[in-house]
Amino acid sequence: MKLVKPSLAKGTRDFSSLEVHKRNYIFNVLKDVFRKYGYTEIQTPSFENLQTLTGKYGEEGDRLIFKILKSGDYLRKADSVLLEAKESGKLTHQISDKALRYDLTIPFARYVVMNRGTITMPFKRFQIQPVWRADRPQRGRYREFYQCDVDVVGTDSLIMEAEFVLIYVEALKRLGLKDFNVKLNNRKILAGIAETIDESDRLVDMTVAIDKLDKIGFVGVSKELLDRGFIQEKIDQIQSFLEFKGDYQDKLSFLEEKFTSSAIGSKGVEEVRSVFDYLNTMLQENKDDLKYVDFDVTLARGLDYYTGCIFEVKTNEVKMGSIGGGGRYDNLTGVFGWKDVTGVGVSFGADRIYDVLEELNLFPEDKSIGAVVLLSNFDQESERMSLKVAQKLRGRGVSVEVYPKHDKMKKQLNYANSKQIPFVVFTSEQDIKENNKFLVRNMITGEQDYLTIEEFLHRQ
Amino acid sequence: MKLVKPSLAKGTRDFSSLEVHKRNYIFNVLKDVFRKYGYTEIQTPSFENLQTLTGKYGEEGDRLIFKILKSGDYLRKADSVLLEAKESGKLTHQISDKALRYDLTIPFARYVVMNRGTITMPFKRFQIQPVWRADRPQRGRYREFYQCDVDVVGTDSLIMEAEFVLIYVEALKRLGLKDFNVKLNNRKILAGIAETIDESDRLVDMTVAIDKLDKIGFVGVSKELLDRGFIQEKIDQIQSFLEFKGDYQDKLSFLEEKFTSSAIGSKGVEEVRSVFDYLNTMLQENKDDLKYVDFDVTLARGLDYYTGCIFEVKTNEVKMGSIGGGGRYDNLTGVFGWKDVTGVGVSFGADRIYDVLEELNLFPEDKSIGAVVLLSNFDQESERMSLKVAQKLRGRGVSVEVYPKHDKMKKQLNYANSKQIPFVVFTSEQDIKENNKFLVRNMITGEQDYLTIEEFLHRQ
Repeated sequence: MKLVKPSLAKGTRDFSSLEVHKRNYIFNVLKDVFRKYGYTEIQTPSFENLQTLTGKYGEEGDRLIFKILKSGDYLRKADSVLLEAKESGKLTHQISDKALRYDLTIPFARYVVMNRGTITMPFKRFQIQPVWRADRPQRGRYREFYQCDVDVVGTDSLIMEAEFVLIYVEALKRLGLKDFNVKLNNRKILAGIAETIDESDRLVDMTVAIDKLDKIGFVGVSKELLDRGFIQEKIDQIQSFLEFKGDYQDKLSFLEEKFTSSAIGSKGVEEVRSVFDYLNTMLQENKDDLKYVDFDVTLARGLDYYTGCIFEVKTNEVKMGSIGGGGRYDNLTGVFGWKDVTGVGVSFGADRIYDVLEELNLFPEDKSIGAVVLLSNFDQESERMSLKVAQKLRGRGVSVEVYPKHDKMKKQLNYANSKQIPFVVFTSEQDIKENNKFLVRNMITGEQDYLTIEEFLHRQ
Repeated sequence: MKLVKPSLAKGTRDFSSLEVHKRNYIFNVLKDVFRKYGYTEIQTPSFENLQTLTGKYGEEGDRLIFKILKSGDYLRKADSVLLEAKESGKLTHQISDKALRYDLTIPFARYVVMNRGTITMPFKRFQIQPVWRADRPQRGRYREFYQCDVDVVGTDSLIMEAEFVLIYVEALKRLGLKDFNVKLNNRKILAGIAETIDESDRLVDMTVAIDKLDKIGFVGVSKELLDRGFIQEKIDQIQSFLEFKGDYQDKLSFLEEKFTSSAIGSKGVEEVRSVFDYLNTMLQENKDDLKYVDFDVTLARGLDYYTGCIFEVKTNEVKMGSIGGGGRYDNLTGVFGWKDVTGVGVSFGADRIYDVLEELNLFPEDKSIGAVVLLSNFDQESERMSLKVAQKLRGRGVSVEVYPKHDKMKKQLNYANSKQIPFVVFTSEQDIKENNKFLVRNMITGEQDYLTIEEFLHRQ
């Protein structure tokens, strides 16, 4: 066999035991919160038929989808003219019919349509699985990463929007974050602004420009709007919308007045007000949590498919892009032939949350993620006694390793230290026979004690 | 956007919430047992550089690896002559440089070599991740399926072999299986048989034939051996080895006598005896568990890389192929440039175990995998009260759904029934104000009771 220098594929990562442990900690907190709101987990395959994915993510997205080569003699039926002309783009569909999952939304839509006969609407699901994108890897951007999506489809109830705000608040608080904002806006309010300034036709241009406010400030946005053909008067009007200060009630009243002749704008205001009404009712005993919620008219998000409330979450404790986002869409499944299925969902950026918890030192300290006890092994007798004690401890649920061969004390203690095993046990036939005890060394304090199993379990 | 008929890629599956729940039940039992023996979880990427995988699984394996097409203009640098000749095989490496994980062993070997500076040997890991094979799908065989592997590398201690037997026994017992065999043999014993009958050169032929004993009986094996050039006298000798009856001690004594002039055979006997000695010591308080362990000289398994003890697990309660297997290898990492790393590991066939548990009805009965309570919603007042009660219940860890709109009683009860939500709660301002109670309907018995939250939590 040819010798191969071991390497990782570009943009991918191994996860050590400690990393898996920490990632599972995040996933488990999220899952627990999702479940409390009645969401259950589904999983879809890692690859889909190519036609299920292409055309759903724009031209850029289509390029970034990883395509899987057909098996066998994949060139046999390929068009010779295209081959000779090296027409990569046109040939792809002839030599590939499958592709790796690019996000969790399209597979979810496919799942809903394929299972419409058996699922109960409103259908609530969460999904935590890797996705793959052929992006150029850079710090914090990988070609394989996990998405954590939670969605409900089949209801237009704004209770769902309010619940998603609370899901964000509870999950992030439980992960230990203290200063974060769940930003809330509504696409209809953006449409109302465009309508009010008589620029409905340029809603997309306006939204794209506003979306950059965070990065380039209003001076930048203003320039962008000019470039996109807005006259100064309109830009000033937009600015008056975006810069209005006040609490959510002030902002809603302000918009309400401005939108007297915009039905869609008024609808947006009404929806946001309902969400806050629900939040006030639900947070009656936790009023303080309202401080995390921020009605932000400047929040725009991607334009593609959101139609109602939109969300975005930012932490203020660490310099970091958004750690979550989502919104309501009106036509998730249309492309698979089931029209007018409305839904709303949010997603958590697990990799970014991981980095935030790491930077703030918020991962819980676990004594050990591997064995808690190393049974020592010096000779046949101690090996035999150690094997017996090991089984007794395992029978009580303790994670135990037996040192695999007769060896010097020092090597065994070093092994325990380097694997961060907190206790080393020394067994002797005499100790066990006479008083059913063994010697336990605490590897952190260096203390040693003769203990029975019960005493050890109690002490641990 | 073009309308697409939704479909799954061939050989792949969606998993519903119930299926995910049941699969996680199996994975969690396995993980818990692995952890008790000091194994911790690692994860490797879904795709590897193509050169990491090719040449490791034989010609057939190479064909079954899913290759990923390069991004961008992948044909630009491809050899025009090969393209025009439609040489699929030779072109693959020019248009693909990545491939989906085919098993967990090679990625593990790569991981060990790439992390040799930081991991502590013996290194114990488990890994539960999907793998992909371009096999023709058929009943029970998928193109995406999970493998559950647990391995230790860096020690030749036979304690590890004994522990793997106990890992199988404990895991399968905990999953509810009652009648199964963990078959144990040693490749050196097969080598000893070949040596004893003076056919060492044809060890592979002999092993391949013996491997089929289960399927074709000794008559079939005998014919196969004849076809492979063994003379009848040798076949009779082989038969005497395979058909010897007795307990493990009888078998070991029998082989010991036969192997007086085969050093490798004697070594195999000695190793198996050591494993049983360890098992006897470890099972001192659970002697009965020894009944699951079966020293089976006819067990052969794939020849490729096992060099010592080999394992295979069968259930006798359901007609089903092996549900697990493994063994010791002497050179896991050689192909990545680190020689003579010995190790031993086993794997669990999660899909088959799932089918076995399903057939024997062994999955634990959970009241509900989704919400436990549906809060009803008839009008503004009941909605408001329901939202408040929902948050109180969630605050106590209960999984709760609020019915998302004002609706008729019957529709709400139907919703609860079809989602198997066991309790529906009816709230009224009066009940809550007066005595802090709400009406709870048990959807299984139909009983209704006025309860406080505490009473409900207690009752549930």
